[in-house]
Amino acid sequence: MSDTFGGSTAYVGIGELVTCDGTGAAGLGLRAGAALVVEGGRIAWLGDAGGVPDADRRVDLDGRAVLPGFVDSHSHLVFDGDRAAEFAARMAGERYDGGGIGVSVAATRAASDDRLRELVGRRVAEMRAQGTTTVEIKGGYGLTVADEARGLRIAGEWTSETTFLGAHVVPPEARGDRAAYVDLVTGPMLEACAPHARWADVFCEPGSPHAFTEDESRAVLTAAAGAGLGLRVHGNQLGPGPGVRLAVELGAASVDHCTFLDDADVDALVAAADTTVATLLPGVEFSTRSPYPDARRLIDAGVAVALATDCNPGTCYSSSMPFVIALAVREMGMTPGEAVWAATAGGARALRRDDVGRIAVGGPADLVVLDAPSHLHLAYRAGVPIASALG
Amino acid sequence: MSDTFGGSTAYVGIGELVTCDGTGAAGLGLRAGAALVVEGGRIAWLGDAGGVPDADRRVDLDGRAVLPGFVDSHSHLVFDGDRAAEFAARMAGERYDGGGIGVSVAATRAASDDRLRELVGRRVAEMRAQGTTTVEIKGGYGLTVADEARGLRIAGEWTSETTFLGAHVVPPEARGDRAAYVDLVTGPMLEACAPHARWADVFCEPGSPHAFTEDESRAVLTAAAGAGLGLRVHGNQLGPGPGVRLAVELGAASVDHCTFLDDADVDALVAAADTTVATLLPGVEFSTRSPYPDARRLIDAGVAVALATDCNPGTCYSSSMPFVIALAVREMGMTPGEAVWAATAGGARALRRDDVGRIAVGGPADLVVLDAPSHLHLAYRAGVPIASALG
Ligand SMILES: [Zn+2]
Ligand SMILES: [Zn+2]
Repeated sequence: MSDTFGGSTAYVGIGELVTCDGTGAAGLGLRAGAALVVEGGRIAWLGDAGGVPDADRRVDLDGRAVLPGFVDSHSHLVFDGDRAAEFAARMAGERYDGGGIGVSVAATRAASDDRLRELVGRRVAEMRAQGTTTVEIKGGYGLTVADEARGLRIAGEWTSETTFLGAHVVPPEARGDRAAYVDLVTGPMLEACAPHARWADVFCEPGSPHAFTEDESRAVLTAAAGAGLGLRVHGNQLGPGPGVRLAVELGAASVDHCTFLDDADVDALVAAADTTVATLLPGVEFSTRSPYPDARRLIDAGVAVALATDCNPGTCYSSSMPFVIALAVREMGMTPGEAVWAATAGGARALRRDDVGRIAVGGPADLVVLDAPSHLHLAYRAGVPIASALG
Repeated sequence: MSDTFGGSTAYVGIGELVTCDGTGAAGLGLRAGAALVVEGGRIAWLGDAGGVPDADRRVDLDGRAVLPGFVDSHSHLVFDGDRAAEFAARMAGERYDGGGIGVSVAATRAASDDRLRELVGRRVAEMRAQGTTTVEIKGGYGLTVADEARGLRIAGEWTSETTFLGAHVVPPEARGDRAAYVDLVTGPMLEACAPHARWADVFCEPGSPHAFTEDESRAVLTAAAGAGLGLRVHGNQLGPGPGVRLAVELGAASVDHCTFLDDADVDALVAAADTTVATLLPGVEFSTRSPYPDARRLIDAGVAVALATDCNPGTCYSSSMPFVIALAVREMGMTPGEAVWAATAGGARALRRDDVGRIAVGGPADLVVLDAPSHLHLAYRAGVPIASALG
């Protein structure tokens, strides 16, 4: 923050202030002619520019838009290894997967603590440079007790939103006895990881051989809830399945992907809209050339929708929330305003946070400035790095 | 360039050097373990890192990939006015166009020279920050003799690749007498613009009411050739049409868009592959939710293909060549290597330049460095600003 030098900073000349704290359409809370004062890393004052109080510094933003920092509520940043060739082969329609997730697991296990710490830090910095100020980070490439605990410990150096994902896939060495692996996840691995995690997540996709069935997923989530963790679910990504129903049944904060939903799934999400967010990850569909989820259907039905990157080495190595917003508008029928809300306030709701994802007096000064006059430009200027963290 | 301080700079630790000067598959010219010495803005030496000569400075790129700077051979940067609301309405499926191109024409005519100069300069800088080191800039939002000449004069302050596009659309005030407008373009407007332009272009799209028919396009291009300008064509974007045939017939350097091609069009492009490049602009299809051109069909047939942004306020306000590369791979079936070649050497060919778009001793040190170990990451890391001009 610019106020690490101490004192207060007044931001004037804001072209459009998007508070995501409004009661209007989509809750975007647009304000013209507004100014902000930041002090001690918090929003000290918000109002019309004409009435801005004195501050130690005055920064003229020259008509640029200011938004809440993006809340990326779904990422997998703790990994080593390069899978670019697997991506290129997939795009070429070849069956080669180069070892797939096994490459990430082996490289992550082999990496030193310092190496992992450097990689995670670099990725968090890359996100911040694109306007992400809150990030959730999952484990899931260690898949041993020690490696999952280590990954979460390192992730915790960068965020309080850490997620235990021992149930990412059944690792190669455990495929002969899935039940034993679920016992490991719900037993010693959970015990070792819970002190370093706020959340637990599971890849519930019964049609995928190394992901988890409904019963396995319920066992993992129930044990995690018993250990005091909040719940998240990867569900309904690759085909119809029980992920959404299970997430709603267990009161998960979010169910993520949501591509293949039947009417009952949508009804369940509508009924649970105050509890469970549907988090859409269109960077995955872009990077795997898959059909996109139908955001329009969900929003029109009344489902709470968030957007996140899913940044990971296998299915989407994009860390860019602006790119996700552009995809949401182009490919999923969201308006630019809905996409911005979903990438800020929606992400905050998916993390059950009410301090971030909006701009309000007393809240943290997690701000994004655009090199553009309005939030519309995040989709209009697709691919251009116009967003950065302010301060 | 880093050598504006004088002296020579050795770049070592290059993870992958993409010269686009090779004879291998796709001409990508990949080299591992290479180093470069830059002096006086030119490549003074290229070879294996073990044999790098002494230099005044030594920069370790720590495994990053180095590519030729992107050659964006199609852009419309000379404009004022904001059309973000038109974009948002189009994405929402609404018919509102807010005034369409008329908004840009009115705002561009009304802007002062200094204002236009600042806008163009800012856009060129934005491109450079994303790795574009050569850019073609078209006029086309003035549409009077004085305004087109002014736009090209200002564009010429930033690039030698300036393109006269008086035949962008028939302007609102001239729609009662199209023939008179074509006479203006081929007469006084061409005369005033030719001293400031290397190229002439025409929006040949008979199905579009304010674009130009085959006969009108031929008249414009023939007159421009007579005035010593090289030729380019916007063709076959919105439907089948004569654009490609006309471009090949008249020996144009490039025909751009190429979405709706019949077999005869493809055959004509194959026969003319040494003369006429097919320049694809997938940012336009992204930003207008339109079908993408079939790059795979063109490349497999033997057509010379370039990629460019078409950066413009109406149909694609993206200035990002990395974004275009990611779209080419995701949406048009190009390999990452083909896309990189098309965005560098292909663009150079579309501008009939053999000095840029490749890395060779004696050539300009127009270099891109990636925050990644290989060119594959340009598509793999879609939306992330990993490319920047080196030096
Ligand atoms: Zn995920
Ligand atoms: Zn164009």
